Amino acid sequence: MSTEVVAPEVSDELHCPTVHPEVCKLVHQPEALWSRRRVLIRDILLTEDKGLSFVGKTVTVAGWTRTMREQGGGKFAFIVLNDGSTFDNLQCVMDSEKVANYKEVIKSGNVGVCLQIKGILVKSPAAGQSVELHCQEVTVLGACDAKTFPLAKKRHTLEHLRDIAHLRSRTNTIAAVARVRNSCAFATHLFFQERGFKYIHTPIITGADCEGAGEMFTVTTMLDENIKDIPATKDGKIDYSKDFFGKHAKMTVSGQLNVETYCCALSDVYTFGPTFRAENSHSVRHLAEFWMIEPEMAFADLTIDMEVAEDYVKFCTAYVMEHNADDLAFFEKQIEPGLHDRLKNVLESPFVRLPYTKAIEILTEAAKTVKFEVQPYWGLDLGSEHERYLTEQVFKKPVIMIDYPKEIKAFYMKLNEDGKTVRAMDILVPKIGELIGGSQREENLELLEKRIDELKMDKNGLQWYLDLRRYGSVPHSGFGLGFERLVMFVTGMENIRDVIPFPRWPKNASY
Amino acid sequence: MSTEVVAPEVSDELHCPTVHPEVCKLVHQPEALWSRRRVLIRDILLTEDKGLSFVGKTVTVAGWTRTMREQGGGKFAFIVLNDGSTFDNLQCVMDSEKVANYKEVIKSGNVGVCLQIKGILVKSPAAGQSVELHCQEVTVLGACDAKTFPLAKKRHTLEHLRDIAHLRSRTNTIAAVARVRNSCAFATHLFFQERGFKYIHTPIITGADCEGAGEMFTVTTMLDENIKDIPATKDGKIDYSKDFFGKHAKMTVSGQLNVETYCCALSDVYTFGPTFRAENSHSVRHLAEFWMIEPEMAFADLTIDMEVAEDYVKFCTAYVMEHNADDLAFFEKQIEPGLHDRLKNVLESPFVRLPYTKAIEILTEAAKTVKFEVQPYWGLDLGSEHERYLTEQVFKKPVIMIDYPKEIKAFYMKLNEDGKTVRAMDILVPKIGELIGGSQREENLELLEKRIDELKMDKNGLQWYLDLRRYGSVPHSGFGLGFERLVMFVTGMENIRDVIPFPRWPKNASY
Repeated sequence: MSTEVVAPEVSDELHCPTVHPEVCKLVHQPEALWSRRRVLIRDILLTEDKGLSFVGKTVTVAGWTRTMREQGGGKFAFIVLNDGSTFDNLQCVMDSEKVANYKEVIKSGNVGVCLQIKGILVKSPAAGQSVELHCQEVTVLGACDAKTFPLAKKRHTLEHLRDIAHLRSRTNTIAAVARVRNSCAFATHLFFQERGFKYIHTPIITGADCEGAGEMFTVTTMLDENIKDIPATKDGKIDYSKDFFGKHAKMTVSGQLNVETYCCALSDVYTFGPTFRAENSHSVRHLAEFWMIEPEMAFADLTIDMEVAEDYVKFCTAYVMEHNADDLAFFEKQIEPGLHDRLKNVLESPFVRLPYTKAIEILTEAAKTVKFEVQPYWGLDLGSEHERYLTEQVFKKPVIMIDYPKEIKAFYMKLNEDGKTVRAMDILVPKIGELIGGSQREENLELLEKRIDELKMDKNGLQWYLDLRRYGSVPHSGFGLGFERLVMFVTGMENIRDVIPFPRWPKNASY
Repeated sequence: MSTEVVAPEVSDELHCPTVHPEVCKLVHQPEALWSRRRVLIRDILLTEDKGLSFVGKTVTVAGWTRTMREQGGGKFAFIVLNDGSTFDNLQCVMDSEKVANYKEVIKSGNVGVCLQIKGILVKSPAAGQSVELHCQEVTVLGACDAKTFPLAKKRHTLEHLRDIAHLRSRTNTIAAVARVRNSCAFATHLFFQERGFKYIHTPIITGADCEGAGEMFTVTTMLDENIKDIPATKDGKIDYSKDFFGKHAKMTVSGQLNVETYCCALSDVYTFGPTFRAENSHSVRHLAEFWMIEPEMAFADLTIDMEVAEDYVKFCTAYVMEHNADDLAFFEKQIEPGLHDRLKNVLESPFVRLPYTKAIEILTEAAKTVKFEVQPYWGLDLGSEHERYLTEQVFKKPVIMIDYPKEIKAFYMKLNEDGKTVRAMDILVPKIGELIGGSQREENLELLEKRIDELKMDKNGLQWYLDLRRYGSVPHSGFGLGFERLVMFVTGMENIRDVIPFPRWPKNASY
């Protein structure tokens, strides 16, 4: 005797915490039971009793085999099934006398076969798992030939996996990264939405000339096959007036200046989108295409900016520790021993507030005994070696460095009263270095214009930005976080190319 | 006597519904009270009693004046303040005898002045509002000169506002659009996250050649000023091997093929990111840069695909009706009378399922009396006029059209048994036309290869995509929704350029 279990019914409570029950009933038509097509392995194994409450019940699961191997001279087979919903696999036992197409299943491969399995959950005699599935019906949805399947062999270097980026999400490591990345993204939205921030989509293609945060890609429709077809002026210049946008258009390096326009109307806003750098960098910390989060708050000074940034980093860390415990256990074991303690330390420590000038004093003193590649001095744009020394050796926790020399920071940052430093803050974390960069923005029109003149920037192209200070100006602050750095920070992954699905860097844009 | 009210304390319950309380305590340090810098007007006016519980209490608010005008011969002034947190304004009364810098405030402008106001909330004698604020301290954060402020005059056409896109979020209409757009975006994440889908960031820059969904922009670092500097081969061709990515790189038109690779490992996934079309379109329904949501589900056929899509549209609609009631009331009044009933009808109606062949029969019959610009016939790629006729005249609700002729659909769609039609579905809605396009994907390697050959596509460039069918193939389905169309659908806005912060179309890429 066994009861069949389908995935939990779409209940108002489970699925609409944010919508009134009356509205909810309209949304979830009783016939819309699409989510019940299979039970997710997550919903069996991640229950409080690790699936024991399912014992004796019939379930249908579906996924891909991590392994499938015969035992007892072909009398039965063990199938280790993963459906991507969680790190852990469900062990399934297939008896040759009970499953009619046993031989077909065995012939379909071992690693990477796609199966749908109906069976009864029983208590497992094996160590390390509480339940296993005894197969009744097994359907081969997609066979997988171990002779040609690139992932048939068990161990692959992360470097090799980058060459098969379309298949690497089928590995333990990259699937775990994808789940943690998903959690970081949703935690970001949760954090800001619950605090009343509005999500703003700033443009990717931009005709603005004055961002100055890095080398930019050109976006064009003028290039096809032949040089002679490219529109040119009489003196051999490229004629951008003939281009799609009627000007030289580029890909954004930051949404900040754009989102400030919405901050000056909706108060608290944030961006979350892709940004681009056309820099010839092959480092493990840089990509040509990466995602960035840029909150911007009206009526906020640098102190508020720091508090929000610290809260946000802690919120994401806590969210991942809560929702991806099994993925983190894997990273602890395979990628970074000590990861859990590092993250716990981040959650429990108030971040250090450290003025730049004080940091230079500490580093100068340290330089007497520690060997830095670049000697620290006041005015230096600190390098990764200095940042990591401060967070890993001196304070052993995240550090918010503030009040940087104006010369090494952007034109829009608010000048301190000393006339030398600006209200900038960077959050430096152990292992990664800079995770967040932010500042209070100069809201005074005259001071901002003066700074633009000093830097000999094109003031004309910035008139729209100056308008924000010209009409109803507001003290405001914000910061930017490189999303991939956050994922590296919480997973311990060391190469940024492994924490984004399809990484782009010089000479690499496949798929 | 009055008690001072600050914004609600950051309580575990309010802010961490998704994180365990123990973890939550670590995140929200008691000193992190940054959110208490001011009370949001939303938190006063959108309470159940419309702010009456605040009567007698002192609050600090901050925002921009919608109007500021003196009355009683200069004895007092009415300030109508908006902080972007909600559509509604807070009326503030400033008495010249009680506010020391009364004259400075008056001199700062009328429309668009940025103020911080501390005062006591009292019951309002005026109609249309339950409470008003009696000012005690008013700080002018940013004056605004009505003589030059482009928005000083009250009425502006939406067309004119597009020319001042950096200021238009300060208008009622565009701010309401931004809030609804924010709600649609968050509702999207909520819907998919609560159902176990993982958010995947597919690449923006792509070297893949075979998407075929539309004209693409080129991404390059080879263009600067002079034609002669562009790398060329001996025979005058553009030498893309010298470009940043070592090949002709473009901007994505869809993340679908990429996200399928993650679907074949994590089961249920979705994208939400910008996509691009280099098409010379000036229509009110097309942009060169727009955002798209593309869910992809393993173990799902077209029926499941339709159910998820219908649930998703209804969820977003319900979420906006619930969270943006005041914004929708404005759209009802100013943009589309009948909007509320249209949306309610969408929520309450099961969407019609209509085979393409049946639709052609209906349209052919209708064409006897209705004048279509293009006569309907089997095989025609239906136009907006046909789609709107079906949803607005025949069914008066959303229609899911299915089983399209294979000739007018993409190569990857699964062939029906008739050999003529494919398992495609489009969701057509009143007023907008096509909102969603989706299909079951061909998971059979041989059939997919055959179709690619028939269409004379470059099979070599698609080997990675074919690998998904070669190794552990899985029946799967998905759809794409143009995010701006969804925002138009729920707001009634008629020009797509008004529902994205900085629209891009031919010759337009300012800011």
